[in-house]
Amino acid sequence: MAHLSQKEYEEALGPLLHELSDAARWIQETGQRLVVVFEGRDTAGKGGSIHMFASILNPRQCHVVALPSPSEREKSQWYFQRYVEHMPARGEISLFDRSWYNRAGVEAVMGFCSSQQVTAFLKAVPDFEKQLVDDGIYLFKYWLCCDQERQEERFADRLNNPLRRWKLSPVDIKSRALYDAYTEARERMLAATDSPHAPWTLVDFNDQRLGRLTLLRDLLDRLPDTKLPVENIPWPKLGHDPIKERYGVMKPLPSYRWHDRDD
Amino acid sequence: MAHLSQKEYEEALGPLLHELSDAARWIQETGQRLVVVFEGRDTAGKGGSIHMFASILNPRQCHVVALPSPSEREKSQWYFQRYVEHMPARGEISLFDRSWYNRAGVEAVMGFCSSQQVTAFLKAVPDFEKQLVDDGIYLFKYWLCCDQERQEERFADRLNNPLRRWKLSPVDIKSRALYDAYTEARERMLAATDSPHAPWTLVDFNDQRLGRLTLLRDLLDRLPDTKLPVENIPWPKLGHDPIKERYGVMKPLPSYRWHDRDD
Amino acid sequence: MAHLSQKEYEEALGPLLHELSDAARWIQETGQRLVVVFEGRDTAGKGGSIHMFASILNPRQCHVVALPSPSEREKSQWYFQRYVEHMPARGEISLFDRSWYNRAGVEAVMGFCSSQQVTAFLKAVPDFEKQLVDDGIYLFKYWLCCDQERQEERFADRLNNPLRRWKLSPVDIKSRALYDAYTEARERMLAATDSPHAPWTLVDFNDQRLGRLTLLRDLLDRLPDTKLPVENIPWPKLGHDPIKERYGVMKPLPSYRWHDRDD
Amino acid sequence: MAHLSQKEYEEALGPLLHELSDAARWIQETGQRLVVVFEGRDTAGKGGSIHMFASILNPRQCHVVALPSPSEREKSQWYFQRYVEHMPARGEISLFDRSWYNRAGVEAVMGFCSSQQVTAFLKAVPDFEKQLVDDGIYLFKYWLCCDQERQEERFADRLNNPLRRWKLSPVDIKSRALYDAYTEARERMLAATDSPHAPWTLVDFNDQRLGRLTLLRDLLDRLPDTKLPVENIPWPKLGHDPIKERYGVMKPLPSYRWHDRDD
Repeated sequence: MAHLSQKEYEEALGPLLHELSDAARWIQETGQRLVVVFEGRDTAGKGGSIHMFASILNPRQCHVVALPSPSEREKSQWYFQRYVEHMPARGEISLFDRSWYNRAGVEAVMGFCSSQQVTAFLKAVPDFEKQLVDDGIYLFKYWLCCDQERQEERFADRLNNPLRRWKLSPVDIKSRALYDAYTEARERMLAATDSPHAPWTLVDFNDQRLGRLTLLRDLLDRLPDTKLPVENIPWPKLGHDPIKERYGVMKPLPSYRWHDRDD
Repeated sequence: MAHLSQKEYEEALGPLLHELSDAARWIQETGQRLVVVFEGRDTAGKGGSIHMFASILNPRQCHVVALPSPSEREKSQWYFQRYVEHMPARGEISLFDRSWYNRAGVEAVMGFCSSQQVTAFLKAVPDFEKQLVDDGIYLFKYWLCCDQERQEERFADRLNNPLRRWKLSPVDIKSRALYDAYTEARERMLAATDSPHAPWTLVDFNDQRLGRLTLLRDLLDRLPDTKLPVENIPWPKLGHDPIKERYGVMKPLPSYRWHDRDD
Repeated sequence: MAHLSQKEYEEALGPLLHELSDAARWIQETGQRLVVVFEGRDTAGKGGSIHMFASILNPRQCHVVALPSPSEREKSQWYFQRYVEHMPARGEISLFDRSWYNRAGVEAVMGFCSSQQVTAFLKAVPDFEKQLVDDGIYLFKYWLCCDQERQEERFADRLNNPLRRWKLSPVDIKSRALYDAYTEARERMLAATDSPHAPWTLVDFNDQRLGRLTLLRDLLDRLPDTKLPVENIPWPKLGHDPIKERYGVMKPLPSYRWHDRDD
Repeated sequence: MAHLSQKEYEEALGPLLHELSDAARWIQETGQRLVVVFEGRDTAGKGGSIHMFASILNPRQCHVVALPSPSEREKSQWYFQRYVEHMPARGEISLFDRSWYNRAGVEAVMGFCSSQQVTAFLKAVPDFEKQLVDDGIYLFKYWLCCDQERQEERFADRLNNPLRRWKLSPVDIKSRALYDAYTEARERMLAATDSPHAPWTLVDFNDQRLGRLTLLRDLLDRLPDTKLPVENIPWPKLGHDPIKERYGVMKPLPSYRWHDRDD
């Protein structure tokens, strides 16, 4: 498959971002609540996809939920308790960078929980999600797929690119040898938790740019007509020359001189 | 002043982001805590600056704190209470998109609080921040400046660019006529809260790209030597052909066909 | 019906409190979690019943959850969200002084929510509670009953006894005229939410002492055998005369002189 | 010293509770906030004192704050962070059953923190508390004293009385041998944290009843005149015979038969 070039990607993305922006305004103005769960293969592109959303949305409206490992106290509570805390209020969007599905994915494959816990989780999920959906929350769940060849390339990039090195966790390293086990865990998870009220959507992220476009197009298509008229804002002239900054207590920093640094 | 081109910006930014990445690793591995407060003129570029950080850092480490308006109950609590909740734990970074300084800025200028409350706030801040700094937290406070000419251009952009329209709040619209009042409020705030343990830094954001570089360079210079050796990670061969995704319960979505959309 | 005297009550209560204490130790040592919901007629005796528990239990183990009215933001969240936050961790007990059932009681009768919201709530409750019970939480729900004659006497006491005046809310005052409506709301609620996994128990609180004994006996009977051997604690002699308090920086307050006050 | 009998205690307590009730109403109606810190010798009587307050106050107004040990994450945050969360909102009372002073007491004596941490804490406290007091919070701090002879008697009671056994923690057992060390830690703490804005009050709890009266009298005397007129509530006749409970879905439990149990 031919990969999408950066230029093609940006041309295709532009109109979608405008639609996303309209959708966010609709969510705000009509008081909707949106939850998007991003799960998937390590390196598939969850972070980049979330970034596509977060980069154009109001951070007061759109929250990225990337929880740390649970504390001992949290581990002993109702499994969903620490996630529930981050469900959106009126007009808000919660983007889950991994989610309650950890239990069916990494925890199950790496043995961080018992098989009884996995089974109980898979049984509980559809009812838990039904509660949210019945309460009026839009809940979309995406699982991002990629072949091991792509995964190996991206792991290698994380290994060698200092800017991405933090993305390489000890669990990732062990996961390389467990590609098949993750597939099996995913299939079991899909079979148990793909429900009419909260269906799963798989997206092929072998080409990450194309994957992001596909995901965003799908999400937008699932929302109802979100086109609202833009409020007209009266915009009178200032009536005077624009004012310049003036400094009393202290001056601004001297500007960074990037040329000198190159020397 | 000549503006920085996108290309120049990216060339200059690259090495700084590598330093930032190193600093984040140092914060993580040595268990530091970092708070960065972003305040400034409307449209100056707080969001873009925060985005510069957040786009390359681990969302589990680096949290953007963009609080909604306080509830009635929160309004009646200790003024700093709802901010304290978001102070970083070991290894974490909290980026405040606006902060407790609202009281000395927008609240003071727009009359959302009494002048006694502003005075009490200005008196309380240095001790509050000293508590955090004495506890070992790195606290950096940036105020982003721009002339009204730039502000008017950027307001106009928000008015006309649907992707940025959400950035135009009713308060912003009133703020156009209050440029001087904001300057005065800032000067009063600087005089009262620029302390040895938590100094303010003004950054000129008339050129936003240059402003971001200047801010980031300054922040990096305030941290001690953050260079840590990169841990060597053994990376054995897979030992088999890379595995392809296989799908049982459901197939991935068909890819987004961007060409057709253009027709 | 002959009322229980204070002396009879205390004699009967003693052994039950010992059992409760054993049960609390069992919950602690075996890591159980217990939720008790106290609902019922205004003035029936919820507060006194909760007090019976809280007065002998460790406040670090046993939490009374008496939530204030929801904020606007909370009102717009998943209905159960603000209650979920207070679910017990390992070894803990949560006593809910009123609960999510507000929606089927006071909110329904007083018109604080729409009839659609009541219907949706009644439909959602059994699944919500099943989630908790399936997760291993012990969930007991008590509804405390009393005739209007008793209620009127107790309202009159609240009206005239300054120590209890705070118990008389404006809603209570309106509730006097709505005794039947509350009965109907309760019956509808029982029909919808009395489930095999989370059954309701009605307790007659026309005699509050007897009601408390009845409730406690029932709760203890629902728990499995909670008798654990008491750990033997070695208790060596002090080996010196007991030490007296000595004061340097300041002295204690002079003791309250109650006789003088009587003069 | 002659101990106060239960009868004398109740006679003396009555009028004080009425004053406390008035004070609570004043706090509610005028929107004050009250924090009471209960610290002191093990077994001195913190729990009983808190219970004296909580037993007559509205649990929606008056919160007992008895925090568990901090999680690893909390340990790494600003020391006061987890306490700040429980500061009162308008009209509320927070009763701290132990508090941030743990660091100067049990943690210092038992070596749960470093001596640098104790020193830093003692230095930080006055400024932290000044923040709260300057914000308008009433902050009262009581340290409950008792001789070791009383402490030994009460430890023995906890050892032998199953209802109180939970009060005997492993730390208590070690504390028996450290009476003097706790005295020294207290004196150091008093010297460092008895400030004009947040003074300490020692109360002799060798007689717990007398101690509670002394503490409550002192607290009431520190509040301004809290007498507010009681609102007159119109109380019309019901206009019909009082209604009896009627049961449809289910019947109440049979009453507990305490006589049979005695057989």
